[in-house]
Amino acid sequence: MVVHNETSTGCVTRIPEIRKVMDRARHPALLMVDTISSLGSIEYEHDAWGVDVTVTCSQKGLMLPPGLGFNAVSEKALAAAKANTSVRSYWDWSEIIAANKGGSWPYTPATNMLYGLDEAIKMLLEEGLDNIFTRHKRYSTATRAAVRAWELEVLCQEALEHSPILTAVLMPQGHDADQYRKVVLDNFDMSLGAGLGKVKGKVFRIGHLGHFNDLTLMGTLAGVEMGLDLAGVPHRSGGVLAAMDVLKRSEAVPVPRTAVA
Amino acid sequence: MVVHNETSTGCVTRIPEIRKVMDRARHPALLMVDTISSLGSIEYEHDAWGVDVTVTCSQKGLMLPPGLGFNAVSEKALAAAKANTSVRSYWDWSEIIAANKGGSWPYTPATNMLYGLDEAIKMLLEEGLDNIFTRHKRYSTATRAAVRAWELEVLCQEALEHSPILTAVLMPQGHDADQYRKVVLDNFDMSLGAGLGKVKGKVFRIGHLGHFNDLTLMGTLAGVEMGLDLAGVPHRSGGVLAAMDVLKRSEAVPVPRTAVA
Amino acid sequence: MVVHNETSTGCVTRIPEIRKVMDRARHPALLMVDTISSLGSIEYEHDAWGVDVTVTCSQKGLMLPPGLGFNAVSEKALAAAKANTSVRSYWDWSEIIAANKGGSWPYTPATNMLYGLDEAIKMLLEEGLDNIFTRHKRYSTATRAAVRAWELEVLCQEALEHSPILTAVLMPQGHDADQYRKVVLDNFDMSLGAGLGKVKGKVFRIGHLGHFNDLTLMGTLAGVEMGLDLAGVPHRSGGVLAAMDVLKRSEAVPVPRTAVA
Amino acid sequence: MVVHNETSTGCVTRIPEIRKVMDRARHPALLMVDTISSLGSIEYEHDAWGVDVTVTCSQKGLMLPPGLGFNAVSEKALAAAKANTSVRSYWDWSEIIAANKGGSWPYTPATNMLYGLDEAIKMLLEEGLDNIFTRHKRYSTATRAAVRAWELEVLCQEALEHSPILTAVLMPQGHDADQYRKVVLDNFDMSLGAGLGKVKGKVFRIGHLGHFNDLTLMGTLAGVEMGLDLAGVPHRSGGVLAAMDVLKRSEAVPVPRTAVA
Repeated sequence: MVVHNETSTGCVTRIPEIRKVMDRARHPALLMVDTISSLGSIEYEHDAWGVDVTVTCSQKGLMLPPGLGFNAVSEKALAAAKANTSVRSYWDWSEIIAANKGGSWPYTPATNMLYGLDEAIKMLLEEGLDNIFTRHKRYSTATRAAVRAWELEVLCQEALEHSPILTAVLMPQGHDADQYRKVVLDNFDMSLGAGLGKVKGKVFRIGHLGHFNDLTLMGTLAGVEMGLDLAGVPHRSGGVLAAMDVLKRSEAVPVPRTAVA
Repeated sequence: MVVHNETSTGCVTRIPEIRKVMDRARHPALLMVDTISSLGSIEYEHDAWGVDVTVTCSQKGLMLPPGLGFNAVSEKALAAAKANTSVRSYWDWSEIIAANKGGSWPYTPATNMLYGLDEAIKMLLEEGLDNIFTRHKRYSTATRAAVRAWELEVLCQEALEHSPILTAVLMPQGHDADQYRKVVLDNFDMSLGAGLGKVKGKVFRIGHLGHFNDLTLMGTLAGVEMGLDLAGVPHRSGGVLAAMDVLKRSEAVPVPRTAVA
Repeated sequence: MVVHNETSTGCVTRIPEIRKVMDRARHPALLMVDTISSLGSIEYEHDAWGVDVTVTCSQKGLMLPPGLGFNAVSEKALAAAKANTSVRSYWDWSEIIAANKGGSWPYTPATNMLYGLDEAIKMLLEEGLDNIFTRHKRYSTATRAAVRAWELEVLCQEALEHSPILTAVLMPQGHDADQYRKVVLDNFDMSLGAGLGKVKGKVFRIGHLGHFNDLTLMGTLAGVEMGLDLAGVPHRSGGVLAAMDVLKRSEAVPVPRTAVA
Repeated sequence: MVVHNETSTGCVTRIPEIRKVMDRARHPALLMVDTISSLGSIEYEHDAWGVDVTVTCSQKGLMLPPGLGFNAVSEKALAAAKANTSVRSYWDWSEIIAANKGGSWPYTPATNMLYGLDEAIKMLLEEGLDNIFTRHKRYSTATRAAVRAWELEVLCQEALEHSPILTAVLMPQGHDADQYRKVVLDNFDMSLGAGLGKVKGKVFRIGHLGHFNDLTLMGTLAGVEMGLDLAGVPHRSGGVLAAMDVLKRSEAVPVPRTAVA
């Protein structure tokens, strides 16, 4: 089981590499990938990458409210599920697959969300997945440029694994990330992501995901930079400028359509 | 007839001064003020300032879609209307005032807008008008600091008349404002206001009105600054930084609540 | 000036007859028609019927909230407007026509309504105007059958002028229509139309307009019939049955799509 | 495990009787009740009736879209869950209870639904639960009177167990319920409930649940009666009249407020 985009650290796992290692070791395990925060924002290939079970949800790259979960399942995983004699009901795919053939669902589905999903998918295809992936990389490149200019540290150390959809930033020693986050929330009505688990209080997270554009990013980074100042966190100013430099110099990416156009 | 906040120029007319001049001259004219873009965002006093007819609408400081207009009318204006023997129907207040007494309206009103208005007024009172007025001044001060840093010129020359809700900026000689606006729209999906009438093509306008906060402003100013660069308009960089300095240094203003909280 | 569908009486004026009379008399007057409550529900032909000015609005057959008005204007009316030297601004078509050529409007339009209008027109064309006209006639035929079964009287006496979209019903002598309407509102949360002007208190009106179907009509008529009983208005029961007979016997009319399908 | 209101049959299980039997037998089992279609529409007492686990959802009596499920859990059930050493995560209450203490939830909840729930609960309390329960009984009494008048049979034979929120009706021998349902859907855009499992094709179900009033019921019953005729199902006419008689004679029940009032 692997998380594709790790929202608590801002690292992307290279799924094809993992598949390769498993294949080399001829390991029989199923490969299950959590794409909760990546699907529709970061390149991902369930079939081509040899994933057995992909799990995702509505409220990130699909730009919907929370309330829907999705599974993509390989033939191998289906066979394993069929061979499994444990009793289950809610977790059983067979009834769902049978109902799906007729365009239906074995229980009462969250119908309103399905209308939203229909529209969200139209929006994603209208913009084009390649453009969406490029757009998110553009935001993360600009965000990391800002972090470097502030002389702070990005939690994810491996360049190949930098998340295009969020950036976790380490607080300088002796400074509490949650106190800083409170200053930003109180002053600018912006809720930055908290560090979770081991890095609680040690990192804050900047999201740049979904229906988002260059100026939303700039508003976000300006709030981070002003907040660092107001909270007395040691840093150099200039992050916002550095991000603008990246945005201006990189090739323009067509902006996503606004909701009503 | 006076416009309180002139949206095409970004100047605020000092209504009490005009009243004083009229009074000094014992001029019998009615004083009619257009507060389309100012009501609910800039301090305004229909009664205390001795205004006879105030005109406003739903789609600016009241934060609603366009579709409602409002009149406030003094006793003197009512008497003048009554004395006026010209034939009119749509423009006649008497039928409206009669229906209003019973909480009604002589024609079919835009009922959906009235539900919105009820909520908008709750939001304005919840935040407090003083806070709202201070908040908009904060945006305009920061915006003018940005313009100065860019070494561009604010169209409104009189400091006492700077509009808190929008700033019109003069383009350098030989540069077309509308071409610049197109660059900003194409690259950042942001529609800056056009120059109107005499200043068409010579100014662009930055709005900072209504349900708006510090970070929305920073996103806006970042788009203006990056656009100046991309469009090859001569300017110094640093406007965004200058605006952030103003926002950080001025006393914090409580942020308006978000829609659902 | 003529009202096409008179909502206070439930009569439809035969516009082509009026045009014929005017033509026969070689009368030079412009023919102006109010289609507020008929457009999109009752057959109407601005050009073919030789109308000079047609006035309508959003909140009836177009199934939108109140807030938009529309004019269709003949060449003859445009010429008359052009020749007219009276001063006007709001009522002047020339500025609107000029702006319309570029897909625009000289003032701030009620933009949200325009998005709704776009959808409403799609719905009307999807159902087909002929079907819509037939559907409304079906409702009015059924409603009049109910009124006859109750041994009450339809206000509109001329069969050729029965309104397809509402039916005004005369109260028996000595019974107040507004008191009856209150009984219906209090017991069934249904607001019947009041008599206006000369027929105030003497008639109540049953609307069957717009996004409406057979079962909405039957709920409406059941409320009218139960209300007659509860309010002690002399009548025979059986109106609901009579209406059902009409609906069952008349050829089926495809139902309008529901909002989300 | 018991279903409180059985939607496939239209019978209500008398939970207190079941509790009494269990108590008399000193049976140690937990009593789990499915109130999916009853909560908020039919009287139900989790604590007073000695239920251990109550399960419900958003899309019936709570008048929301589908998408939320709820559990009420007794001390005894909590103790049993704690004593249970089986591995589980999604089905484990302890993590949820811990998070709930701080007003939170261990996973991403369907936030939009929670705003809706807040409003739905306000509406239920505003109307008053007793009124709501009486109102639904009124609908079911009227519906059964209609079924009797049609000389059809209500599936639920035990008067004490008639469901207040839906009525399942047996088709006469040799007539297919699903074919009848199709006639009603095609002619009147009304989707009647299908028979499920053993009674598939043998019953159709009339729902009268949630945000519903006397006239919605009358529209529904008129559609059922006209459909019986159009589909050639043997029946006597008069069901609609019989239902109106019940509604007129029973004590008036205050109607639920309309959405916007």
